[in-house]
Amino acid sequence: MIKGLNEMLEEDFGIKFTNVALLDEAFTQASYVNEHPKENLKFYERIEFLGDAVLQLTVSEYLYQRYTMLPQGKLTRLRAAMVCEESFSAFAKECRFDEFIRLGKGEEKANARQRPALLCDIFESFVGALYQDQGKLAVETFIRKVIFPKLDLGWFDHVMDYKTSLQEFLQKDGDIVITYDVVDDLGPEHDRQYVMTVSADGKIIGQGAGHSKKVAEQQAASNALGLLRK
Amino acid sequence: MIKGLNEMLEEDFGIKFTNVALLDEAFTQASYVNEHPKENLKFYERIEFLGDAVLQLTVSEYLYQRYTMLPQGKLTRLRAAMVCEESFSAFAKECRFDEFIRLGKGEEKANARQRPALLCDIFESFVGALYQDQGKLAVETFIRKVIFPKLDLGWFDHVMDYKTSLQEFLQKDGDIVITYDVVDDLGPEHDRQYVMTVSADGKIIGQGAGHSKKVAEQQAASNALGLLRK
Repeated sequence: MIKGLNEMLEEDFGIKFTNVALLDEAFTQASYVNEHPKENLKFYERIEFLGDAVLQLTVSEYLYQRYTMLPQGKLTRLRAAMVCEESFSAFAKECRFDEFIRLGKGEEKANARQRPALLCDIFESFVGALYQDQGKLAVETFIRKVIFPKLDLGWFDHVMDYKTSLQEFLQKDGDIVITYDVVDDLGPEHDRQYVMTVSADGKIIGQGAGHSKKVAEQQAASNALGLLRK
Repeated sequence: MIKGLNEMLEEDFGIKFTNVALLDEAFTQASYVNEHPKENLKFYERIEFLGDAVLQLTVSEYLYQRYTMLPQGKLTRLRAAMVCEESFSAFAKECRFDEFIRLGKGEEKANARQRPALLCDIFESFVGALYQDQGKLAVETFIRKVIFPKLDLGWFDHVMDYKTSLQEFLQKDGDIVITYDVVDDLGPEHDRQYVMTVSADGKIIGQGAGHSKKVAEQQAASNALGLLRK
């Protein structure tokens, strides 16, 4: 049994595994198994195979239900930004999973514990183990704490575009009318600069500028998001 | 409402949709929506986004539980062979989904109805709609009829290798001892040909030949699978 892991999960996430062997498997790399041949251990790869698909579905379902106006292309881009090594390794660190991985000595020396690919694998294998041990609802509860709040923090705005993000952000609290207005245009015709504001129910909440109205709108939305999230 | 679709699903699969609008959405292409602007229709792409992830998990979970001895690499290869355009389009045809797709006139003329990419999409969107309407268990029941029997029919043997397939096939009915034996070698040393048999609990069930023992074993396993599945 991996020391402290169960306690950390219970304290930080209210999760208590029934099948602790499965949890150990999820945090054990092949290199560790090879160094302890007599202990008949399993390593995380099979359970990671399952966890990967569990995450894919949990995230898809959430996006599908939350962003009812987003077309498939944008949903797919958003999912790809969330379900990837960069995100999952960051989540693993945030959950302190890196502290509990069982590694072989060589891997430990090579600093594998901080390698994004491994952290990502462990995040997936943990979710696979949680799914096997406690089902889909437990995974959803965990993911609602760890992944979904990042949407509101703007982690994935870059794939959504700022106008869409702002719309989604504001419409959480009910229908709001969002308008973009040109308030100024500067410079000569061949080098025109547009200044635009964005308003929510008539109140200005952000401002931006750019060589096209499209760019100025995006700037204004980004500015508003920054102010709203403060 | 798409004529006959509900009836076909009930007759062939015992599936009856509560939200028929969702079922219609799953079988409607954008080209059809564009040609009927007043009907306020939806096309299948968003629900396909969900269905894709539902299939990925349902298949992964089944493989994970059934092939308890397969390592991650083989599980991943097997899943990729099952969850792909070629397979899904074949399943869609088998389920007669092609007959019920709503297409625009141009797409109809271009024979889009038989295009594997579209058939694959529709298979995914149907599963997405089924999941939304009736949940994961209903999807599993459907998939158990349509996809999983193909494993026993050998559709995916080429990614599994024949020896593994034979082992999985035989061990469904409990533990069986499988042995491979060289029964003959022919030809000169630089062009040796091995003849091998494969036996289950001591009874020969197949035979194969090849320039290496490895190839001869695969041939023997393939031969046995062919005979057993007759």
